[in-house]
Amino acid sequence: MTMQLQSYIAGRWVGREAAQTLRSAINGQPVATTHAEAIDFAEAVHHARTVGVANLLKLDFQQRAAILKALAKYLNERKEQLYAVSAHTGATRADSWIDIEGGTGTLFAYASSGSNELPSGNVWHEGPAVSLGKQGQFAGTHILVPRRGLAVHINAFNFPIWGLLEKFAPSFLAGMPCIGKPASATSYLTEAAMRLIIESGLLPEGALQLVIGSTGDLLDRLDGRDVVTFTGSADTAAKLRVHRNVIAKSIPFNAEADSLNCAILAPDAVPGSPEFDLFVKEVAREMTVKAGQKCTAIRRAIVPRAHLDAVASALRERLAKVVVGDPAVDGVKMGALASADQQRDVAERVAALIEGGARPVFGASDGFAPRGEGVAEGAFFAPTLLLAERALHTPAVHELEAFGPVSTLMPYDDLDEAVALAAMGQGSLVGSLVTHDPAVAARVVPEVAALHGRILVLDRDAAPESTGHGSPLPMLKHGGPGRAGGGEELGGTRAVKHYLQRAALQGSPTMLSAVTGEYVRGAARIETEVHPFRRHFEELQIGESLLTHRRTVSEADIVNFGGISGDYFYMHFDAIAAKDTAFGQRIAHGYFVLSAAAGLFVSPAPGPVLANYGLDTLRFVKPVAIGDTIQARLTAKRKIDRMKVDAQGRGQGVVAWDVEVTNQAGDLVASYDILTLVAKKG
Amino acid sequence: MTMQLQSYIAGRWVGREAAQTLRSAINGQPVATTHAEAIDFAEAVHHARTVGVANLLKLDFQQRAAILKALAKYLNERKEQLYAVSAHTGATRADSWIDIEGGTGTLFAYASSGSNELPSGNVWHEGPAVSLGKQGQFAGTHILVPRRGLAVHINAFNFPIWGLLEKFAPSFLAGMPCIGKPASATSYLTEAAMRLIIESGLLPEGALQLVIGSTGDLLDRLDGRDVVTFTGSADTAAKLRVHRNVIAKSIPFNAEADSLNCAILAPDAVPGSPEFDLFVKEVAREMTVKAGQKCTAIRRAIVPRAHLDAVASALRERLAKVVVGDPAVDGVKMGALASADQQRDVAERVAALIEGGARPVFGASDGFAPRGEGVAEGAFFAPTLLLAERALHTPAVHELEAFGPVSTLMPYDDLDEAVALAAMGQGSLVGSLVTHDPAVAARVVPEVAALHGRILVLDRDAAPESTGHGSPLPMLKHGGPGRAGGGEELGGTRAVKHYLQRAALQGSPTMLSAVTGEYVRGAARIETEVHPFRRHFEELQIGESLLTHRRTVSEADIVNFGGISGDYFYMHFDAIAAKDTAFGQRIAHGYFVLSAAAGLFVSPAPGPVLANYGLDTLRFVKPVAIGDTIQARLTAKRKIDRMKVDAQGRGQGVVAWDVEVTNQAGDLVASYDILTLVAKKG
Repeated sequence: MTMQLQSYIAGRWVGREAAQTLRSAINGQPVATTHAEAIDFAEAVHHARTVGVANLLKLDFQQRAAILKALAKYLNERKEQLYAVSAHTGATRADSWIDIEGGTGTLFAYASSGSNELPSGNVWHEGPAVSLGKQGQFAGTHILVPRRGLAVHINAFNFPIWGLLEKFAPSFLAGMPCIGKPASATSYLTEAAMRLIIESGLLPEGALQLVIGSTGDLLDRLDGRDVVTFTGSADTAAKLRVHRNVIAKSIPFNAEADSLNCAILAPDAVPGSPEFDLFVKEVAREMTVKAGQKCTAIRRAIVPRAHLDAVASALRERLAKVVVGDPAVDGVKMGALASADQQRDVAERVAALIEGGARPVFGASDGFAPRGEGVAEGAFFAPTLLLAERALHTPAVHELEAFGPVSTLMPYDDLDEAVALAAMGQGSLVGSLVTHDPAVAARVVPEVAALHGRILVLDRDAAPESTGHGSPLPMLKHGGPGRAGGGEELGGTRAVKHYLQRAALQGSPTMLSAVTGEYVRGAARIETEVHPFRRHFEELQIGESLLTHRRTVSEADIVNFGGISGDYFYMHFDAIAAKDTAFGQRIAHGYFVLSAAAGLFVSPAPGPVLANYGLDTLRFVKPVAIGDTIQARLTAKRKIDRMKVDAQGRGQGVVAWDVEVTNQAGDLVASYDILTLVAKKG
Repeated sequence: MTMQLQSYIAGRWVGREAAQTLRSAINGQPVATTHAEAIDFAEAVHHARTVGVANLLKLDFQQRAAILKALAKYLNERKEQLYAVSAHTGATRADSWIDIEGGTGTLFAYASSGSNELPSGNVWHEGPAVSLGKQGQFAGTHILVPRRGLAVHINAFNFPIWGLLEKFAPSFLAGMPCIGKPASATSYLTEAAMRLIIESGLLPEGALQLVIGSTGDLLDRLDGRDVVTFTGSADTAAKLRVHRNVIAKSIPFNAEADSLNCAILAPDAVPGSPEFDLFVKEVAREMTVKAGQKCTAIRRAIVPRAHLDAVASALRERLAKVVVGDPAVDGVKMGALASADQQRDVAERVAALIEGGARPVFGASDGFAPRGEGVAEGAFFAPTLLLAERALHTPAVHELEAFGPVSTLMPYDDLDEAVALAAMGQGSLVGSLVTHDPAVAARVVPEVAALHGRILVLDRDAAPESTGHGSPLPMLKHGGPGRAGGGEELGGTRAVKHYLQRAALQGSPTMLSAVTGEYVRGAARIETEVHPFRRHFEELQIGESLLTHRRTVSEADIVNFGGISGDYFYMHFDAIAAKDTAFGQRIAHGYFVLSAAAGLFVSPAPGPVLANYGLDTLRFVKPVAIGDTIQARLTAKRKIDRMKVDAQGRGQGVVAWDVEVTNQAGDLVASYDILTLVAKKG
């Protein structure tokens, strides 16, 4: 049965009339049709800007992280529905796993890093605040705020689900509504995922819209608050980048384009070494996973000239074992390209590479016979290995990409040549260096990294856990310079910042505190009757502060603290040596000052503060000498409601406290933040 | 005498024949001529890519920071030469201060933040590394590396020196050679500064080249390793952004464009309040400093309708006192526009604003008489205040910029309208909110910040130290979204990242350590005979490690530690209450564990470790119960040679140590970095 695909616009599914027929990559049978009805992009944009932004900003960073987690769980429980649809794209089960569970895994990862790293509220304070004057009443800092615009995400055909979700996750966390536009060829799989997302009821209305078919005049309707992202070919990226309105409004445009990624076999990885085998396995894997249709696939395998033959024969042997065909047939390891168009395109590119000076080393133009029924109408292509003997002088192999199971071997004479060959890709998403020699990594990586978005150093130690050359990970940045589009996506909460606006903020510390929701030193404080450690999470206000009683530090304190800690460092115990230090006398242990400060502000009985689980940016600003009198100031600095509960089901939140320890002269002697878990009342 | 300007290309001054005549803004007399000789941009680019990159990468981040400091000092000592030349631009002494000392101040600021925040070497580890597998032998992190390309900095006419230096400083720190191209009209001042820079001999050859006149085919010669930055009009930014080669190679393009910045007078700032007066003063100042030729100037003054008349008359009164003329004449407060072209342009824009619905409130089209000799030929313009009564419906005042001493008053009825008016600028470099009410700041700033690069909250507290609406500061980001160009510059070491390439890095911890130059947990360690605290800075290798003896934590330790610290928290002392906690029993103080660990790894006699000045990211991972046995592992993690010496003239460097405290089961109980100063041998 042919599915009639629909767009999801302004809260409705749109489209009843068939337009373009989308065919199975395996057997050419119709799978789905796009819709003929034009989308009202004015309505879509208006919906995102009004309903979408309003609904998203009713939630905060932490709440949106929690929704992502729920959505990931929901989709994971229904993943088999998606695997069934994915089979039409020519993908094996393993290929689909990358797309489907790679997609939900990305949601989980963003849910987790969002919860761990983002604040409560909708202002992300990118501190620390710095004083801009001598009196301390004029300070500056940075905030990241929702842009109150929308994100248009234009995706490639090769990862219909992951492509949507990996772009949606950080924009959703940022509070930015999205319009997703998958490539038509495999848009039936994106639409299937979208139907599950809408059915889940987990997303607030307006958070995500889906466009099946053309983007029409969508880009003309955007402005400087919006963001456009694109994954696909470098040519299309260049076209979109110069869109009149994108330029006129300085709309951020993030491109992730196919590139001619390389893997370098280092000289130490001689035949017989574990690294040699890892290299061969990785190249073969990158050629055949997704039938080579990954923008991260290894297109250029750069090997020592001395080992060229060994690599070539090992690869030939491995590729010969790859069974191609309908992934539903037992034993099939590689499926089809996504469409007949792709099949034609790859064939043309291979011909052009050969025309340009590459020589076939392995291929199956004769006798290539995919397994399965109806595969003659499928979009299959044989794994094809080429060789460029004089790669420095064969520009075609660094410029022309066959987006299928195609790679080119390139021999080098020394590491300088290997680095030069890598650079001829003019910017790639990823490069691998296969070596077991840290000195080689230290020399090659910084140089190669200048033209790469990601570098994998592969050796016997990393291999058992390696996720491989071709897999972008949610915690690591994806996107490379130059040919690869010059964009950045993924990379944990760094990616969330791409959908927020950074603004510098100047003013009095009181104003900075009010805007950021974080106590900034110098701001007005709230001195309450109640010890702030006795306040529940909900009760506690930022700026609530306690100035403790004082304590005079004596020689006995130093002696006793040395006895307990075992720390008899000369600065604390050797009056003769201490005389020669910058301080000119024995001083108290820094950790004594820290411990005594805790004794000054502790509230000993059980109370809402459940644990002090950490401490950040401790600086011992001035020494504490015998006879000095110290005092601590404890101020509620930051509250984060991670919507977590403890083992007993009681709610709790994170509170960071600013601590200033001063001496009798009022000078700061120690400065730090302590991190606590604080119980909720409710 | 007319100066014959020259370009500085590939280590030579180029140009002997006069081309365009540049005239004094004050009296129209010739000041300088550009040169007629065409620049060989192939040579310039080649020089930067080869000599420039090689020389810059012989130095590391810390060494380049030290050079910036020396250069700042050199220029500051010769600043009067620059003030003399600056007078021709129409600038008052105060105006020139922004350009000249603002420029050298920016060098000082980058020298300082570079020294404090950047590593030794040329790989900036943007950690922390994260484990990507369960065995701990596959990890990921990010590095920032020099791009090995060049930066082309195209600047506006209004800040000939600051414009060059604020862009040069972060690119130089990043190890990227620059080609600076000032706007021709005032390029004689940039050239004067460049001559001092070259004379100083402080910069390595190839680090900086200067183009007087057109950039010719320069942009055609760039590739994806390079960066282009631009400051100027939004129209020119849009033109450069779509340059064929910039698009084809995905060359990062950073634009900072004039924008219609606003200042909002909040409702609480009623006439008679300090904030009301601050607002009037700030608007008048922004109109007249640099004769209003700042891309950050307040073009739109948004005020409560109820106070419109009060603001208008206060501004009229203040503007009436502004004496315009040759700054060399006593009492002159405002100089000329930069050129006759600018004068004509501003006049046309004012006419267009009036045509578009604005009404003049103050101006001096009749009887405007600048003081000084020859001023009839100068480019003077009267301070001009306009009013748009129905600003929401007067698009011209939000779109047309008169780049001179011109501002428009706009009344609003409520804060929503004020926010809407601010947004009509469609993206600005900076906005001010004048209020003494933190609640107003908390409500308005996050919304307005979505369309602004910087927000100043001005009140009586901040005012005495405020650097003002119009001043970008080196530590704070400069650049705004949309109309303002969508770029980012300045902002401390964040700006250095714009000239580096970020790459994700995956591999074994040993490989990550080798590449980043920082110990990553799980990496191979170096266990030496000598305690690592007894090694001088130069001797110590990253990864040198000490596994201490053990210590069993007893009840007596808890009791004694409570006695010394005064911390009798129930978790440590109340067996009954402790039973109800997650741990089910009394546990040791976290600070005891920290102190005992210090006792385990201390090396008591005087030695190269001079001080433990801080501690970062301490996490108490597991509780330590009575009877547990702890052990510490101390590993040299990071070395930074700031090229500092102590009071005695002995060299010292910063060493960060990774500390892991484990229990008898080998489980991590506490984790942190300690920061030390370590003496050099030499």
